Amino acid sequence: MWHKIFPLFAHLQASDRGNWSDDLLAGTITAILLVPQGMAYAMLAGLPPEMGLYASIVPPFVYAFFGTSRALAVGPVAVAALMVANALNNYAGGDQAAWITGAMILAAQTGFFLLILGMFRLGALVSFVSHPVLAGFTTGAAVLIITSQIKHLAGIDLPRGDGLETVLAFLQHMDQTHWLTFVFSALSIALLLLGRQPLVRLLQRLGLSPRAAGMTARGAPLVIVIVATLAAAVLVPAGADGLAIVGAIPTGLPIPGLEFFRASGWIELLPSSILIALVGYVESVSVAKVLAARRRQKIDANKELTALGVTNVAAAVAGTMPVAGGFSRSIVNFDAGAQTQVAAIVTAVLVAVVALFFTAAFHYLPNAVLAAIIVVAVAQLIDLSEARSIWRYDRGDGAAWLVTAVAVLVLGIELGLIAGIAVSLATYLWRTSKPHMAVMGRVPGTHHFRNVNRHVVDTLPDTLIIRIDENLYFANTASVEEYILDHVVCCEDVKHVLLVMSAVSYVDSSALETLEHLNEDLAAAGVTLHLAEVKGPVMDRLRQTHLGQELAGQRIYLSTEHAFEALTAEP
Amino acid sequence: MWHKIFPLFAHLQASDRGNWSDDLLAGTITAILLVPQGMAYAMLAGLPPEMGLYASIVPPFVYAFFGTSRALAVGPVAVAALMVANALNNYAGGDQAAWITGAMILAAQTGFFLLILGMFRLGALVSFVSHPVLAGFTTGAAVLIITSQIKHLAGIDLPRGDGLETVLAFLQHMDQTHWLTFVFSALSIALLLLGRQPLVRLLQRLGLSPRAAGMTARGAPLVIVIVATLAAAVLVPAGADGLAIVGAIPTGLPIPGLEFFRASGWIELLPSSILIALVGYVESVSVAKVLAARRRQKIDANKELTALGVTNVAAAVAGTMPVAGGFSRSIVNFDAGAQTQVAAIVTAVLVAVVALFFTAAFHYLPNAVLAAIIVVAVAQLIDLSEARSIWRYDRGDGAAWLVTAVAVLVLGIELGLIAGIAVSLATYLWRTSKPHMAVMGRVPGTHHFRNVNRHVVDTLPDTLIIRIDENLYFANTASVEEYILDHVVCCEDVKHVLLVMSAVSYVDSSALETLEHLNEDLAAAGVTLHLAEVKGPVMDRLRQTHLGQELAGQRIYLSTEHAFEALTAEP
Repeated sequence: MWHKIFPLFAHLQASDRGNWSDDLLAGTITAILLVPQGMAYAMLAGLPPEMGLYASIVPPFVYAFFGTSRALAVGPVAVAALMVANALNNYAGGDQAAWITGAMILAAQTGFFLLILGMFRLGALVSFVSHPVLAGFTTGAAVLIITSQIKHLAGIDLPRGDGLETVLAFLQHMDQTHWLTFVFSALSIALLLLGRQPLVRLLQRLGLSPRAAGMTARGAPLVIVIVATLAAAVLVPAGADGLAIVGAIPTGLPIPGLEFFRASGWIELLPSSILIALVGYVESVSVAKVLAARRRQKIDANKELTALGVTNVAAAVAGTMPVAGGFSRSIVNFDAGAQTQVAAIVTAVLVAVVALFFTAAFHYLPNAVLAAIIVVAVAQLIDLSEARSIWRYDRGDGAAWLVTAVAVLVLGIELGLIAGIAVSLATYLWRTSKPHMAVMGRVPGTHHFRNVNRHVVDTLPDTLIIRIDENLYFANTASVEEYILDHVVCCEDVKHVLLVMSAVSYVDSSALETLEHLNEDLAAAGVTLHLAEVKGPVMDRLRQTHLGQELAGQRIYLSTEHAFEALTAEP
Repeated sequence: MWHKIFPLFAHLQASDRGNWSDDLLAGTITAILLVPQGMAYAMLAGLPPEMGLYASIVPPFVYAFFGTSRALAVGPVAVAALMVANALNNYAGGDQAAWITGAMILAAQTGFFLLILGMFRLGALVSFVSHPVLAGFTTGAAVLIITSQIKHLAGIDLPRGDGLETVLAFLQHMDQTHWLTFVFSALSIALLLLGRQPLVRLLQRLGLSPRAAGMTARGAPLVIVIVATLAAAVLVPAGADGLAIVGAIPTGLPIPGLEFFRASGWIELLPSSILIALVGYVESVSVAKVLAARRRQKIDANKELTALGVTNVAAAVAGTMPVAGGFSRSIVNFDAGAQTQVAAIVTAVLVAVVALFFTAAFHYLPNAVLAAIIVVAVAQLIDLSEARSIWRYDRGDGAAWLVTAVAVLVLGIELGLIAGIAVSLATYLWRTSKPHMAVMGRVPGTHHFRNVNRHVVDTLPDTLIIRIDENLYFANTASVEEYILDHVVCCEDVKHVLLVMSAVSYVDSSALETLEHLNEDLAAAGVTLHLAEVKGPVMDRLRQTHLGQELAGQRIYLSTEHAFEALTAEP
């Protein structure tokens, strides 16, 4: 029974004892990455840095027990952090205490929403966020996040605003750039980038194995943070004016509390929470799926709803912001060898140790360095080559990518996501409202029927065979009827119309009405309507109708071939 | 050329001279119906009665030239009138002059919106209002209209409100019923009902032909109006207190003007105008289609957009409210023998004569009688038997009917319509997100393949044949993948999975990604993926992809039969 509730136990049973050292190492490396990243994402969310640490302790610990993914690293993530900032900007304005309460409300609502979806097994709802929309959203959000860090990178006090607005404001106030801050930013970005592939290659040339080199390089951000903090600790007390630093971070862990339940704003924040839940869940599940597939394991999308739901409620109770499975962090965890969620427990314990004893060490950490960490992390999310390949495969999907990305930049992150989803749904509906239809003929000497425009086929002079490549429903009945009537009107000889229903899985009541009218109109013009290859579920329903009863027996055929032969034999 | 712009000329050329007398008679009968109805619908819209007369003069005259329907009677309609009242209640409050200007803005916007749709040939947009939604909307709106007339029928001053609200307010204030008003209402309703079938039957028994009896009975409402007006003209000056009467109606026609263009509120009224345009257009086209089919004529849905667009702009310039083709009025016109829109010109001229010379005669007309006319007219729109047959055919469509009808009553006419459309679209999307899939086998001795659960068929032990009865797109890829994997996992022997794509007209980029993952996952489990009956347009696209290139040649088959034979031959 415990194995069912807590997949961790099943995973532990299935894995070797020898894996524990892998998990220990992976958890440690993830923690080293997470400490600076957590503080950075808290800053991105407009929250004090310790909240990023708290979000890296309780949530991964709780997820470890409930999650079906073995390598997903849960904690604060960049896109959700920006969405939190966006939601709280309207809710809390300049009131720091309200920001903190608001973040907890968002986390709780996110969790409850996911739990409700899980309870009703509505995981399928999130599949309405299509792949192009998610990709466009991620790229747009990454650009938005980068623009939001300009003020920290340049040390200018810009008003909080969206994308283009911020860039324009920066261009206006560029002359106010604080040069010392800018030096910290530029150096941090350069070193963070060098700390990736170039450092790995250097370490390999120095004799480390590829794996050891890769893992050692994961420490680069923490080293950069320590060095930058030391430099600032010398410069700031020596009189370097205007370099923004993190400042005092309280030591210890927050006392779990439920006061946020009594705070106002639950209704106001609900739409934002739903969107944060959606984005967080989709991101978590996609990375979890990718990682599971690499080791031929499985995740359970419906159980993930519950796991991430519980995790977010725990985040709220632990006094912090909404969390999700981070994309790059999970990959780091996986590459470092994480076999089970024991790695996440290790991470949580190590971050807790930092929060308990070492927060004072970050007092002089410049905000510019955190901004540099954010920028370098999210820059990876900008993926134009994927956009290109989506566009090449399908113009409509490419357009959905573009609309979403642009809408995120222009309308903001929430409206942008909603606009993307709406456009992708509208595109699908519009497409099905203009279905592909084809006039068919028989491939000579076979019993196969194909489009007359694509193949050399035999046709009957007085029979029009039309295949309808779509379900018949209200949005397309008018256009289907028009297509059929146009083809009948053009050809005086036509005495029979045979509709091949092999691609029609559903005929709604609007379409039924249209078919009935069509049957009457054709009859009035001396043309007989026939159907072939009607599917079981469609036939079940049609049988009860007036039309079905009229056609049944003689005018509905099992296959196009049967119909073709019967109509050939007619006088 | 004129024939193309003005279908009337083509219709006249095609029709006999002898038809002119039919048109004259039909136009006269329609005018007799329209005079009281026009004033009643103006009252329903919250406008002075003369605006209903104006809406019955210029619009039918203009539509006569542009319309492709020969029998559609254009003028004020009940549902649009209620929507006008609803829109103007927020816009103009108690200011009567603002109500009039607002009505003109609504008419102009309705017209421009339809013209824009016509220009871009977007007539298909309106097909997103499904048949069940329209039916539910009409029934809900009819009930709403009836409740809105309670105050006039009972002579109580109730606050303007929606459906249930009004009924509750009436029940509270029932004791204030003005009994003289109530007598007028009750008698009018009784006589209007008797003036239909019972009167026709009586006249037939008196020796009139069925046709003559039917047409004579059309005069009943006007006779009731005249008798009621005479009664009130005696009672009111004699001291009958509190019987609300129409009062002074200005004589003459309004001077066309464009002042309303400068009025404010264009943005505020736009959403209402769009909905009025949608409802008016759909109602007009459906009745026009029904009437055209009865005489084997055609209407052009795209040209109707332009015709109704010009007509509504003309209505605005002529100083009146939005118009559409009325359902019952058009049927009266048709039954009376209207052959061309010359009948509408006759109607327009006769109503103009009334507006010019006889408005004073309606001074003592009780509002209660107009309310009775409204109630009796819209009661016909309540169609529960249609709802029952929709429900019987398809539960989802029945639910759409119910949601729309209830939403109109609870949320109001605009939100109700929007909710209905949203629900019907969501239902369709939800349905396609859980596609029908079937495991297939060969019907013994044939080359037909059918569902193993519905037919006795042959199957191969190591091959799973699955037919996907839906387009593959983002909303259903997860559920399709799950179905396939579930069926592979259950059966250890399976070495081949054959997807029959005969019902797949479209594979979007999210689904392509899923298919690629599926192919890899199956390969890892030692199972080979095959496709059969891939449609031309799908194949064109698939060919360019990695997956298409991998499968091309050996693993994509023209037909399920080819695949079945090839896989039978495999070791």
